[in-house]
Amino acid sequence: MTKKVIAFDADDTLWHNEPYFEEAQERFCRLFQDYASSQEILGLILNYQVKNLPLYGFGIKAFTLSMIEAALQLTNHQITGKGIEQIMAIGKDLLEKPVELLPEVEDVLKQLNGIHKLIVATKGDLKDQHRKLHDSGIGHFFHHIEVLSDKTEVDYQKMLGRLDIQPANFVMIGNSLKSDVLPVLNIGGHAIHIPYHTTWAYERIDYSIEHHNFKTLNNISEVVPIIME
Amino acid sequence: MTKKVIAFDADDTLWHNEPYFEEAQERFCRLFQDYASSQEILGLILNYQVKNLPLYGFGIKAFTLSMIEAALQLTNHQITGKGIEQIMAIGKDLLEKPVELLPEVEDVLKQLNGIHKLIVATKGDLKDQHRKLHDSGIGHFFHHIEVLSDKTEVDYQKMLGRLDIQPANFVMIGNSLKSDVLPVLNIGGHAIHIPYHTTWAYERIDYSIEHHNFKTLNNISEVVPIIME
Repeated sequence: MTKKVIAFDADDTLWHNEPYFEEAQERFCRLFQDYASSQEILGLILNYQVKNLPLYGFGIKAFTLSMIEAALQLTNHQITGKGIEQIMAIGKDLLEKPVELLPEVEDVLKQLNGIHKLIVATKGDLKDQHRKLHDSGIGHFFHHIEVLSDKTEVDYQKMLGRLDIQPANFVMIGNSLKSDVLPVLNIGGHAIHIPYHTTWAYERIDYSIEHHNFKTLNNISEVVPIIME
Repeated sequence: MTKKVIAFDADDTLWHNEPYFEEAQERFCRLFQDYASSQEILGLILNYQVKNLPLYGFGIKAFTLSMIEAALQLTNHQITGKGIEQIMAIGKDLLEKPVELLPEVEDVLKQLNGIHKLIVATKGDLKDQHRKLHDSGIGHFFHHIEVLSDKTEVDYQKMLGRLDIQPANFVMIGNSLKSDVLPVLNIGGHAIHIPYHTTWAYERIDYSIEHHNFKTLNNISEVVPIIME
């Protein structure tokens, strides 16, 4: 068995994340329910997030700044200081959420530990991802933590180059077909998709993937026999 | 000559940065000049930045969010939506500033290139630092870019461990005694201080350092003969 590098996405692969964002967005929708429907508000936030990606990148600070822009537009700039403060609080609360590991994550890491090289490859705020990994109690399983500003083919290629990893020995495990699977397959790596019950609209793609280096699993525990093959 | 790893801080070591922040703060002070003196306003922003460090970390998004908090306090929450928009614009403008290399930086990198391993070790927003390195035109000189969430001894130790660097072969070059020099000396590395003409209040320390692994230089070009020794 060749020693592989197994990279885990973090949010919604190792621990719960998207439900916290959804809860945050619901709070935002309630604050501005007199101005628009929840559906309209969610669309507006997403528009600002995507528009701001080249400048702000991913993560909670970017999300907070995009919520503020959405609120300015929703209220036609009539938002109060108190309203701004409430949005800032939504962002800060997100940054202080407890880290809840997904079921069987720790057990899987224990089984792979020492046999393959385990790393984390995630997007988001640097500080926040480091905080979550620290709080998670599973940081010691990982040889390397890579917080990427995006997960394009080029980003993966740079990471593999820097860490001296051959794509054929690289396995990416994550919940996003768009970020964790497609770019990795395109550069010759292996990818395992473990869907999470909910996916951020930006990460959704509406077609299926068939590839000899690709598998979809229902549960992270199923990766062990596959990787140990 | 042993092959060394030479790490360069980025902001105010490779390119100009602090003057942009000072200009941004001046814009902020002018917006709120009816509420407090510039000195009071700058103190308030700094207080929020330091208070928010554990949650937000370093970088322009954190700075923008701290400016908004300062504005809420200054105006006793009476700030208008227009005012918030002007603060957001200050932050976005910072994220789009051109990258201006400091004199002789490119020449120094050319001379060290291929002889020692060159890396960048910087704090700030991941996305923003990658953008600046890309725009700088000097990205190809560097074997590795490390954006750190902080520059403590532990952060340096983790980085050296991950990159398999012996502290005795590590030289950190930067403009901050607090972030680029002290922690590096404390873990057994070498540090070269190249003061920039202005330093963010948070990075200032009010004592001098004497250490056999430490030098202060006036100009980055002076590092070449020292490193080639």
